[in-house]
Amino acid sequence: MAEAYTRAWLNYGPAGRSENTEYFRTILCGNQENPVLKNAIEEIKTGAGGMYSLSPQWAAAKPEKGGYIELAVNADLDTAEEGYTIKTDDRRVLISGKREIGVLYGAFHVLRLAATKKSLAGLDIKKQPSFRWRLLNHWDTFAPPAIRDNSDSSALAGSLFFENHGIICNDRTRDYCRMLASVGINGLAMHNVNVYNDALDMLLPRFYAEMRALSTLFESYGIGMLISLNFASPVLIGGLETADPRNERVQAWWKETMDRLYANVPNIAGFVVKADSEGVQGPFDYGRTQADGANLIARAIKPHGGLVFWRCFVYNSTQDWRDTETDRAKSGFDNFHPLDGKFDDNVILQIKNGPQDFQIREPVHPLFGTMEHTHEMLEFQLLQEYTGGATHVCWLIPEFKEVLDFNTYALGKDNTVADVVGGKTFKDYEKSGVVAVANANSSSTWCGHDIHCANLYGYGRLLFDASLTAEEIARDWIVQTLSDHPQVVKNLLHILLTSRTTYEKYNAPLGLGWLCNNVVHYGPGPDVYEYDRWGTYHRANWEAIGIDRTSRGTAYTLEYNEPNRSTFDNIDTCPQELLLFFYRLRYDYVLKSGKNVLQHIYDTHFEGVEDVEVFLKEWDALEGLVPEDFFKRVQQKFKNQLAHSKEWRDIINTYFYRRTGIKDAGGRKIYD
Amino acid sequence: MAEAYTRAWLNYGPAGRSENTEYFRTILCGNQENPVLKNAIEEIKTGAGGMYSLSPQWAAAKPEKGGYIELAVNADLDTAEEGYTIKTDDRRVLISGKREIGVLYGAFHVLRLAATKKSLAGLDIKKQPSFRWRLLNHWDTFAPPAIRDNSDSSALAGSLFFENHGIICNDRTRDYCRMLASVGINGLAMHNVNVYNDALDMLLPRFYAEMRALSTLFESYGIGMLISLNFASPVLIGGLETADPRNERVQAWWKETMDRLYANVPNIAGFVVKADSEGVQGPFDYGRTQADGANLIARAIKPHGGLVFWRCFVYNSTQDWRDTETDRAKSGFDNFHPLDGKFDDNVILQIKNGPQDFQIREPVHPLFGTMEHTHEMLEFQLLQEYTGGATHVCWLIPEFKEVLDFNTYALGKDNTVADVVGGKTFKDYEKSGVVAVANANSSSTWCGHDIHCANLYGYGRLLFDASLTAEEIARDWIVQTLSDHPQVVKNLLHILLTSRTTYEKYNAPLGLGWLCNNVVHYGPGPDVYEYDRWGTYHRANWEAIGIDRTSRGTAYTLEYNEPNRSTFDNIDTCPQELLLFFYRLRYDYVLKSGKNVLQHIYDTHFEGVEDVEVFLKEWDALEGLVPEDFFKRVQQKFKNQLAHSKEWRDIINTYFYRRTGIKDAGGRKIYD
Repeated sequence: MAEAYTRAWLNYGPAGRSENTEYFRTILCGNQENPVLKNAIEEIKTGAGGMYSLSPQWAAAKPEKGGYIELAVNADLDTAEEGYTIKTDDRRVLISGKREIGVLYGAFHVLRLAATKKSLAGLDIKKQPSFRWRLLNHWDTFAPPAIRDNSDSSALAGSLFFENHGIICNDRTRDYCRMLASVGINGLAMHNVNVYNDALDMLLPRFYAEMRALSTLFESYGIGMLISLNFASPVLIGGLETADPRNERVQAWWKETMDRLYANVPNIAGFVVKADSEGVQGPFDYGRTQADGANLIARAIKPHGGLVFWRCFVYNSTQDWRDTETDRAKSGFDNFHPLDGKFDDNVILQIKNGPQDFQIREPVHPLFGTMEHTHEMLEFQLLQEYTGGATHVCWLIPEFKEVLDFNTYALGKDNTVADVVGGKTFKDYEKSGVVAVANANSSSTWCGHDIHCANLYGYGRLLFDASLTAEEIARDWIVQTLSDHPQVVKNLLHILLTSRTTYEKYNAPLGLGWLCNNVVHYGPGPDVYEYDRWGTYHRANWEAIGIDRTSRGTAYTLEYNEPNRSTFDNIDTCPQELLLFFYRLRYDYVLKSGKNVLQHIYDTHFEGVEDVEVFLKEWDALEGLVPEDFFKRVQQKFKNQLAHSKEWRDIINTYFYRRTGIKDAGGRKIYD
Repeated sequence: MAEAYTRAWLNYGPAGRSENTEYFRTILCGNQENPVLKNAIEEIKTGAGGMYSLSPQWAAAKPEKGGYIELAVNADLDTAEEGYTIKTDDRRVLISGKREIGVLYGAFHVLRLAATKKSLAGLDIKKQPSFRWRLLNHWDTFAPPAIRDNSDSSALAGSLFFENHGIICNDRTRDYCRMLASVGINGLAMHNVNVYNDALDMLLPRFYAEMRALSTLFESYGIGMLISLNFASPVLIGGLETADPRNERVQAWWKETMDRLYANVPNIAGFVVKADSEGVQGPFDYGRTQADGANLIARAIKPHGGLVFWRCFVYNSTQDWRDTETDRAKSGFDNFHPLDGKFDDNVILQIKNGPQDFQIREPVHPLFGTMEHTHEMLEFQLLQEYTGGATHVCWLIPEFKEVLDFNTYALGKDNTVADVVGGKTFKDYEKSGVVAVANANSSSTWCGHDIHCANLYGYGRLLFDASLTAEEIARDWIVQTLSDHPQVVKNLLHILLTSRTTYEKYNAPLGLGWLCNNVVHYGPGPDVYEYDRWGTYHRANWEAIGIDRTSRGTAYTLEYNEPNRSTFDNIDTCPQELLLFFYRLRYDYVLKSGKNVLQHIYDTHFEGVEDVEVFLKEWDALEGLVPEDFFKRVQQKFKNQLAHSKEWRDIINTYFYRRTGIKDAGGRKIYD
């Protein structure tokens, strides 16, 4: 009975609760031909089959007796475009959507309540998404990456969307869309942002048919298609000698290419662009600004209502390690902030949560809330590139909430990141949102690790309703995926809610980052980046570590609005967990905890391993309470995580011991 | 007029010298049908055309007038099988070979004298090779390695012998054979010792035709074919469930496979085997010894006169870095020494020059001269895997001479490595010799760097006549390849003869090794191997560096014969250049030079760069004196070497400065 892949949180296991069952007898819907409503009807049937062994009938009119679920589109609904209401009266659960997608979202809401065994009686719910754009950027490729593929530790397994130089659209793609719609994701890019070879042709007739099929499927789940493009396409596939945004032939090429693409492929929400970054071409190659580059694409797609998602991950990736003046952390702000107001209205800047690159702990990116006249979107990473690959549990929702809750003090008053990218601060809801680098791939568990699905799930849930607590989200995922058995809920809640802190303990201390290996970005390699070209130096020596990014150093702190600027610039007010991001500290610098930096490093690395030992015990206690195959897969993962957390502990501790000659104050084993 | 590849030292440029020219009028040879003699005749014609613009005629009888070169086979010649004599009388240069190959070698000898403008008058020469087997192991692959290929710095460019899953045999292959025969190489393996996929089929009918063509070509230049094989072939291509050497079906499979192979492919000298090493299967997988494994193959090929070249590069490549008991340097000795006398007579152990892996400075491998009842062969590396890739000039002949001259004290008396592998010590000349990992590839300059051809050239010359000095060899290569202009000879002699010492200065100090990056093995990465699984640790901390390999430490020193054992075991007698191989030393340990270890590291790294600056100047001074394309290619290489030697200098110096906090005594710049 082995399935090719799991059903993750949509497994609809038995969820008997007599008061709920009754509603699933009949589905009343005036229109079962609309693809979105049809998907809603199908989903309810699937859910009813799994949870109650029922086969509900569709009906166009109210059934004479028995419970039923009614699906209705109501354009007058007082919600945002994707909003919905759920009302239970007598024998009916009424799901109303302002548009069809609202009905689908409402259906998933009802199914979730049922799956988590909450009562459907007396419901009176109104929902609309906290963020307009709730996106995924897949980093899939036509050819799997040679280095990162297929290892247990890799965060990048095979592609969901590509195989043998072709584009995939099959039953599994549909199941993936169901998962995404169930948590409210409304757009995705299939291909990664480094666009070469086959991927260039995603703009061209070669792939129109496949793109159309995929995009139509997406549309039936309320998911817009995003396309990653290469700025140098006019040269690489257009036969031109330049990609200069000011060149008229280049402008004409983009317009023609986009006109034809839109005429052949429906439901394109926009285009994702990485330019002038890590070897990819961009406007800088022609002496133009990032705004020139973004506006070039924006104008070509404006007639079609398309958006440009322009990434701000632009930095000098060939830095000389001897150069202590350049601070990569400043590059995003320095390249984009001066251009505030220069971007067309259908350009949205896509800004990573932190100024570096998805390290386990970074301050919030200083661009948030500092560009009043520019649309901003927040980029997270679900793919655990730097946070444990497909081996370590590292549930990121608590981190995402911290980022969203960070006060940017935009416009000189309280404005969180959520306010900025939720469109409240600058009144641009339609041109704002959140995107994440996706973590689903072709593995049988979707994310290479059953528990990592909780990141994808949680991301969607949080974006739809930013008021949810991490615990609420975690609990729903646990019960939907596995069981509401109290032991299962308790143990997994503890694991999920503390896993990010645990990973941080044995990864990099105090916001330092970059103690990992390069290329694979997996496993400890504390000196690996020190002499390389990536601008990610900690410059650890015999007495100190870190970069001074205050006004006395690289002046990165000055990029924030006040009072953040002063808070970070003053070592007494700077958050302790970010001290080594902002300061160069001697190992004997005493933290507020009373420990010095070195002992803090030692302690956290020992504690991290102890935490994982607890995780493994907590998981072992669930044997028999969760499906056996699931249990065994995850047990093996925790064993691997434990072994690997010991590598982190021992290598990092030895690294610092070899520099300082100072032993652990607790007398614990640090290898020579 | 661009050629697809250079002619290296066989370019036969104008070499006018009237007294020599005359001999090249006619070639007298009783048999022009024998493939080897035919090649000798052709070579003399090519040489005469290039050097004197002559087109000598072949004649079966002595010409009536004018000078001539006579080629004669004389089985009674008082030399080894491959020996020859050259005698000049009156108007004739008589080249006599005991066999045809001797004639070819003699012809190349005469051509070399002519090309280096030495007089051919009055010659009375008798030559025979110093070593029986003078071999190359190519590390070519059917598919180019993804990581190391095609970069300027890579030592591994494309294959000479393989392309698109096929085996190449074309005009360039013939030119390569000419180059090898001109310096006396008499055997080669095409494929690297990690044998998988297509390469497994080199034993099978799939490639018989190509192997036959190649082997026949080799034979016409006196080159035996070696084949790299995978010990697990019975499983991988034989359909058996085991490769256990004691299993009768395995034995039968090998016998049948070899019988068929020998029946279809002529001129197979033997088989090269890497087993139980770096993930490759071997007899250990079946609880058998290395002797069991080697004898299995040996017995299958004994009826055909074949030899097994069994590599001693067997070590634990999954070592835990925390394990300080295991010393990889001991693994070769520990795995093989106890088996002395257990190997069949047609097995030759192939032992790397040092106990680790071709680092710039290692002690001689302790197996040499310690296995009285076992045939031993010496393995060098021409491929500059750890010695600068295709960028740095590092002429290895002085190092090779040091190794060959090392006194092993075998049998309790003076016996150099050359005596051991030259068959003198243990009276086994027929089963001894030297092999090198080849450095030629598909690049247009053969070795990726014009000057690197001097390593291939020098290797062959040295093996044929171990009494030659490095300077004699270097001088011949310079004049044959470029010019006898005094400035060219002087500057290049200086570069070649000092280049190894220069590379050593900025690479790893005092025999330490392993300060490079992993995977590519190129460029500085001083901490990269420290926490990895390869057993190559230096364990540098705030006060000391190195591994104690004396009797007080891992006891590696005890593997040598006396008095070497005591010499290495005593810090006062241990050679200074190997101190950090044998000892763990504090940075303030004072060397015999009066400097401490740290200052020695700083000084040598500054000096290394200064040396390269001199090389570049010396090369620049040759503009106009050497062909322009050659000049420009090499000039660019020296510029790259200079830039890269600075990387070595700065990274290594900073690495140690960051540990110690001690600045350079000379006040030179060391980056923080």
